[in-house]
Amino acid sequence: MSAFTSKRLFTTLFPVSTRLTLPRYIKRRPFNFQQTLFKSTSVDSKITDIDHKRVQIKLSEALKPLIPDKDLVFGRNFTDHMLTIEWNAKDGWSDPIIQPYGKISLEPSAMVFHYSFECFEGLKAYKDKEGKLRLFRPDMNMKRFSKSAARLTLPVFNKDELLECLKILIRLEERWVPAKRGFSLYIRPTLIGTQASLGIGPNSRAILFIICSPCGPYFRTGFSAVRLLSTFKTVRAWPGGTGDAKIGGNYSPCVKPQIEAAEKGYQQNLWLFGPDDEITEVGTMNCFVLLDNENGETELVTPPLDGTILAGVTRDSILQLARTWKEFKVSERKITMSEVVKALKEGRLREMFGSGTACIVTPIKEINYRGQDLKVPLDPNDASSNAGPMTRRISDTLMGIQYGEIPHEWSVVLN
Amino acid sequence: MSAFTSKRLFTTLFPVSTRLTLPRYIKRRPFNFQQTLFKSTSVDSKITDIDHKRVQIKLSEALKPLIPDKDLVFGRNFTDHMLTIEWNAKDGWSDPIIQPYGKISLEPSAMVFHYSFECFEGLKAYKDKEGKLRLFRPDMNMKRFSKSAARLTLPVFNKDELLECLKILIRLEERWVPAKRGFSLYIRPTLIGTQASLGIGPNSRAILFIICSPCGPYFRTGFSAVRLLSTFKTVRAWPGGTGDAKIGGNYSPCVKPQIEAAEKGYQQNLWLFGPDDEITEVGTMNCFVLLDNENGETELVTPPLDGTILAGVTRDSILQLARTWKEFKVSERKITMSEVVKALKEGRLREMFGSGTACIVTPIKEINYRGQDLKVPLDPNDASSNAGPMTRRISDTLMGIQYGEIPHEWSVVLN
Repeated sequence: MSAFTSKRLFTTLFPVSTRLTLPRYIKRRPFNFQQTLFKSTSVDSKITDIDHKRVQIKLSEALKPLIPDKDLVFGRNFTDHMLTIEWNAKDGWSDPIIQPYGKISLEPSAMVFHYSFECFEGLKAYKDKEGKLRLFRPDMNMKRFSKSAARLTLPVFNKDELLECLKILIRLEERWVPAKRGFSLYIRPTLIGTQASLGIGPNSRAILFIICSPCGPYFRTGFSAVRLLSTFKTVRAWPGGTGDAKIGGNYSPCVKPQIEAAEKGYQQNLWLFGPDDEITEVGTMNCFVLLDNENGETELVTPPLDGTILAGVTRDSILQLARTWKEFKVSERKITMSEVVKALKEGRLREMFGSGTACIVTPIKEINYRGQDLKVPLDPNDASSNAGPMTRRISDTLMGIQYGEIPHEWSVVLN
Repeated sequence: MSAFTSKRLFTTLFPVSTRLTLPRYIKRRPFNFQQTLFKSTSVDSKITDIDHKRVQIKLSEALKPLIPDKDLVFGRNFTDHMLTIEWNAKDGWSDPIIQPYGKISLEPSAMVFHYSFECFEGLKAYKDKEGKLRLFRPDMNMKRFSKSAARLTLPVFNKDELLECLKILIRLEERWVPAKRGFSLYIRPTLIGTQASLGIGPNSRAILFIICSPCGPYFRTGFSAVRLLSTFKTVRAWPGGTGDAKIGGNYSPCVKPQIEAAEKGYQQNLWLFGPDDEITEVGTMNCFVLLDNENGETELVTPPLDGTILAGVTRDSILQLARTWKEFKVSERKITMSEVVKALKEGRLREMFGSGTACIVTPIKEINYRGQDLKVPLDPNDASSNAGPMTRRISDTLMGIQYGEIPHEWSVVLN
């Protein structure tokens, strides 16, 4: 792999037709992140938006060796390049720069270190059987990214143009997208406020960057159903809060409860809310319950987007798929633990699972609810199964679409 | 000022007796932040805590010119040096390093950029009439800093030792502490999680740094009473949340409501909570109400530390002072807007003010509550006054203690 130089990478991965859409290649030269990062590229004072035609590429002098599939750990290893776009209130967005993956240098007074001006996204690039690169509903991530930015008064941007920039980066990093089914390249767009002052207010400077990390399947050996600790003393989100925004501040406070759950033998927290213990999320996933309701209908339920729930792309995809199936009722509605407990006691609870980009779906096999361990059914027809039939079906369908085996408009081909 | 070299600074500010308490001076050399920042200083694998006797000092080659008092803007200008202490899970805290103020270089995958692993403190150094440096209850800040760190599973530390390190930095930066009454050196200890990976969990690496910024009085021309917009759609904190921790995630979400208030002509948000519009905080300050209650008693009320309120050092100081005065009732209890509105209508509302390190106290003159502008009394004996008599008295007393005019154990002399 070390013989696979950046020059060969460049000519291999950018056929002439593609290269024509990238207007300005600048000469490769030794990488100096700090110098380039803070140089304004605007030639006049007009406020500019992100423009993928202005992407500048500085290739890495030496490419990293790929990580063997078996050694992939989520979010640990990163590709050769990253995309960086600076913003300031006077000039707007500067030219996007794809450059070697490297450190970010900031003043210690930068707002991101003090007041959590940071939001992010998570999506994946897949390689299909024909070797084509695919993204899954990336427009949804761009929309949510922009919404999260606006919530924190961070700069918004042309979502289509940012997506085009992202595609250029992913095409460049094609060799890092694993070919094996279940494997993918995790993509992390991040936006941070970098104004160097301690007075609290909107940022006059920001940096948007995209980094990429090859990752394996969430469960190496098929499904692995999780045990949850229901959590009500610590509350993840609140009406009027920011639970629906993908911002940094929602995450760090959840690690302590996560450790407490782990110490008791539970893999995730089941976040409950309010006096009647509404189900909200599972760890960092959305939550689904499949049950036969009291009217005798089979119903797939997930909590509604009331401001406390992250609008997951996988969540939305599951709802849309299940609705097209027209086989059972699909509801976005409040669901409490007492409803789940009652359904379980009466043999009406069928399956529960979490959903998210990392895992697609994670089957739930047990919930500790106020001291009692409740056994959630998995597969009634197969006692040794680690996931219920609906959980499997949803997972299979979504993976089929993501890897281009099931033709669907959600899967966006890159090359 | 440019002739005031670092060598002279060093010999001037560290008398021999002080220098003896600083065991290891390393030779001055050109500053390379990245190199020093990530060099482990542990010689064995024993977990170490912060130790002020191991402070290393690398003086700046060129000192910055001081900022004229009239040009001081809060948190905009920083002193010549900063204190940095690295931590990793294997070795614990490394040797504290005082070095020239400069950028922090981090991997783009550092947890602080994504999941808001960040907490901080704010305190001030004052110069009294005799030129002595003073801190105000710094032990309270160290306690809260440690508590905030623990809430985010960031590393905790020996609070007394960190305070001693802070004192060494402040002594070194003495020339930056303004001598004028009302002026001070704002000190910002910050702790960030720097593990370079995207999997959510506790950090294996962290950096604690302290930076200092000279600042002027909150109100240049005496008190300036503020107008508040009562805010209930956006919620700052909630039971089971993190409102009592000084963490980054509590701050950025409050900027949008702050801008919305400013657009309507209000300087701050009055954060209300719950169905009966409980008063919680004012902007980033604690809130106090002085009223004659329904039993005919004069009562100073502030919301209790129920988990949604930051345990302000100024808040605690006001409560303690007022209790020693024994002139009126002092209560930490729930107070709702309907109680305030009723007291106002019946002529029983006397004063309201916010409290915090930056302003000490900020008088409140008006509250927009659900569309109505309520006029909060200022000084009944002086229509032109910008603050009520109790607000003034508290401010005067606290400043008197902070600047060493009123002898008090809360004021800690440094040199």
